[in-house]
Amino acid sequence: MNVAILGYGVVGSGVAKVLKENSKTIEEKTGHEFKVTRILDIRDFPLSEYRTIITKNFEDIANDKDIDIVVETMGGVEPAFGFVTTCLEKGKHVVTSNKELVAVKGAQLLATARKNNVNFLFEASVGGGIPVIRPVSRCLAGNNITKVSGILNGTTNYILTKMITEGVSFEAALKNAQELGYAEKDPSADVDGIDAMRKICILASLCFGTHLSPDGVYCEGIRRVTLADVAYAEKFGSVIKLVARAEKLADGKVFAAVSPCFVKKANMLSGVNDVYNACFVDGDMVGDVLMYGKGAGSEATASAVVGDIIDCADNSKERKFFGWEPACEDILSDYTDKETALYVRCTVTDKAEACRRLKSIFGKVVFLWRKDQPENEVAFVTPVMKERQLRKVLSTTGVSVVTTIRIFE
Amino acid sequence: MNVAILGYGVVGSGVAKVLKENSKTIEEKTGHEFKVTRILDIRDFPLSEYRTIITKNFEDIANDKDIDIVVETMGGVEPAFGFVTTCLEKGKHVVTSNKELVAVKGAQLLATARKNNVNFLFEASVGGGIPVIRPVSRCLAGNNITKVSGILNGTTNYILTKMITEGVSFEAALKNAQELGYAEKDPSADVDGIDAMRKICILASLCFGTHLSPDGVYCEGIRRVTLADVAYAEKFGSVIKLVARAEKLADGKVFAAVSPCFVKKANMLSGVNDVYNACFVDGDMVGDVLMYGKGAGSEATASAVVGDIIDCADNSKERKFFGWEPACEDILSDYTDKETALYVRCTVTDKAEACRRLKSIFGKVVFLWRKDQPENEVAFVTPVMKERQLRKVLSTTGVSVVTTIRIFE
Repeated sequence: MNVAILGYGVVGSGVAKVLKENSKTIEEKTGHEFKVTRILDIRDFPLSEYRTIITKNFEDIANDKDIDIVVETMGGVEPAFGFVTTCLEKGKHVVTSNKELVAVKGAQLLATARKNNVNFLFEASVGGGIPVIRPVSRCLAGNNITKVSGILNGTTNYILTKMITEGVSFEAALKNAQELGYAEKDPSADVDGIDAMRKICILASLCFGTHLSPDGVYCEGIRRVTLADVAYAEKFGSVIKLVARAEKLADGKVFAAVSPCFVKKANMLSGVNDVYNACFVDGDMVGDVLMYGKGAGSEATASAVVGDIIDCADNSKERKFFGWEPACEDILSDYTDKETALYVRCTVTDKAEACRRLKSIFGKVVFLWRKDQPENEVAFVTPVMKERQLRKVLSTTGVSVVTTIRIFE
Repeated sequence: MNVAILGYGVVGSGVAKVLKENSKTIEEKTGHEFKVTRILDIRDFPLSEYRTIITKNFEDIANDKDIDIVVETMGGVEPAFGFVTTCLEKGKHVVTSNKELVAVKGAQLLATARKNNVNFLFEASVGGGIPVIRPVSRCLAGNNITKVSGILNGTTNYILTKMITEGVSFEAALKNAQELGYAEKDPSADVDGIDAMRKICILASLCFGTHLSPDGVYCEGIRRVTLADVAYAEKFGSVIKLVARAEKLADGKVFAAVSPCFVKKANMLSGVNDVYNACFVDGDMVGDVLMYGKGAGSEATASAVVGDIIDCADNSKERKFFGWEPACEDILSDYTDKETALYVRCTVTDKAEACRRLKSIFGKVVFLWRKDQPENEVAFVTPVMKERQLRKVLSTTGVSVVTTIRIFE
């Protein structure tokens, strides 16, 4: 079958590489032969082995009747959305690694694919090479899934791992990640949690059956996390991770949030280090399932794209029943309604008095300490209550809150 | 579609339950309706809601043209093998959770299924409810897979977890597992590693493409593991786990073994506790991928069976390209050719002299200590070398070896 690739960047070139280098394995395993016959990119690649099939004109792909499967690895909503829509309407299967596109336009593209009796697949949009979308949609199809959570961004996990294991500051760890190519020059999409938020929206849409738009999802990155917080987390038997999570509530609404969290060391997510990702899914029959692996990188992500390409070939005459309904109004719950415990780091004038007061107000409080703790610094973990209530109570304690981090249960 | 269940035990009854309780979810997600129309069991179930469809006569199912999918949850090779073969030949899809059947007869049943243009699926045969077979065969189909390993038996993992976290002996932990229904009255298939061995054979067959028969695979259970070993492992920054692993070697042969191992705490497998299972797969493009969840239990295993049932319905007119070739002669490598480090616990007469001698013979040796260590006991970890050579060297040291445990890398 003939494959076109839109965008010859990190992932797109990885897809070409995997299809070529592993062509024998793929044919043996699946009975399919794939050939990359067109690549769209606005740049020139005069030295590439693919230079003769690279085009700057999308019409060369859209109008090529011999192209069966189109791989979209450009990123961003436009022009990807227009290109993908056109390809689906022209009866071509589309495979994408573009999380922004799926998070924003997923329901619409799935409907277009269904209408045109072709596949729109996006395993690579969440968790890079880790099998997540297919296990959730196929293997766990017999379950009601009510919760999904995970470490879905490799860049921030790399930075936090450096801070935790080597004691370097956020700024230094970010610089190191940039030098290694793990973080962009403008790191905002990663460090501010936006990338993880898009991915949790895709997972929530898939698990709960209704499109969850990224608009309005609570999203907090890791810029505020300091080595002091890392040290206090250690004393609480935890590590700090950027956790993305979503939960279907009894009233039909969805809680979704991305924020740094204290993760207890007994939780498998605490052992997910460096650029690895992991995703927990909770099904009513199967219980907790976790999938773990490299969440980014050219070849790992291409591995997932190629899995989808093979799936398109296997199911070329059959529309797969797969997807979710368009978004509803008001599906998002208010995140401050969620029950949580909070880690609080604050400054006080009279430590003994502050601790006494915190204890009397909260009842049970776990105080934490660290090496070289300043005389005027107090850190503690509150009991579990609704976040809105917690913050209200906190404002009555008289302490000056420097930072708070949620406790992940 | 109509489903028959062979064997109304723990898993079979779970399948009926999941299909019934989650019928609405399944229909919404997949568009299919499933009805259990026949159940085979030699026992009577006078109070069951299914009593009117339970039969003791396999022919009632084999000859029922309205049955589309047969679920085999009887266990054991015979009569399951005969029943499954008949069903496939009669054009019925078969889904099984029976690891012994798949490990021994997998290649043959896959060939029968292919010949008759039906599906033979067995997601539930490895890792209970954890998605393993489908992610490996579908999502990672673009990879050459050269290594697979994991904790594949929940009973032994429960026993080891009790020993590690609560300091109870093997015997007491086994008794506890039996009381909770996690272990059989005759626990041999679990504690002697046979169940894990069958599962690693299935995974190796799937990953490497050639049937690996359980005959001759090195298999060692956990009966010899003591609390002394658990304590020494802790000092080595490790925990003891029953690890099943297989590796495709450069010469085309396959290394496969099940044995207790020291697993470093930095390895994700070390955090897999209680009856949970986890499986690592190493693909040349994707790198390490791990899947984790409940490895046993009625509903978890049924969740995987139901995923396969849905897959049969989705692909009812299409034979899935899926499976492996029949076994070759001499595919198994000699496990003593494998390079490994060994933990050794031994008794000595003169400790200082023994340690000096061990150091001079092995070069680098890591000595371990524990609380209440007897005066005549020495424990250490050897350097890495071929196991055959290691054991030969060990026999020249003059120490009296009590036990050895491999170090898992």
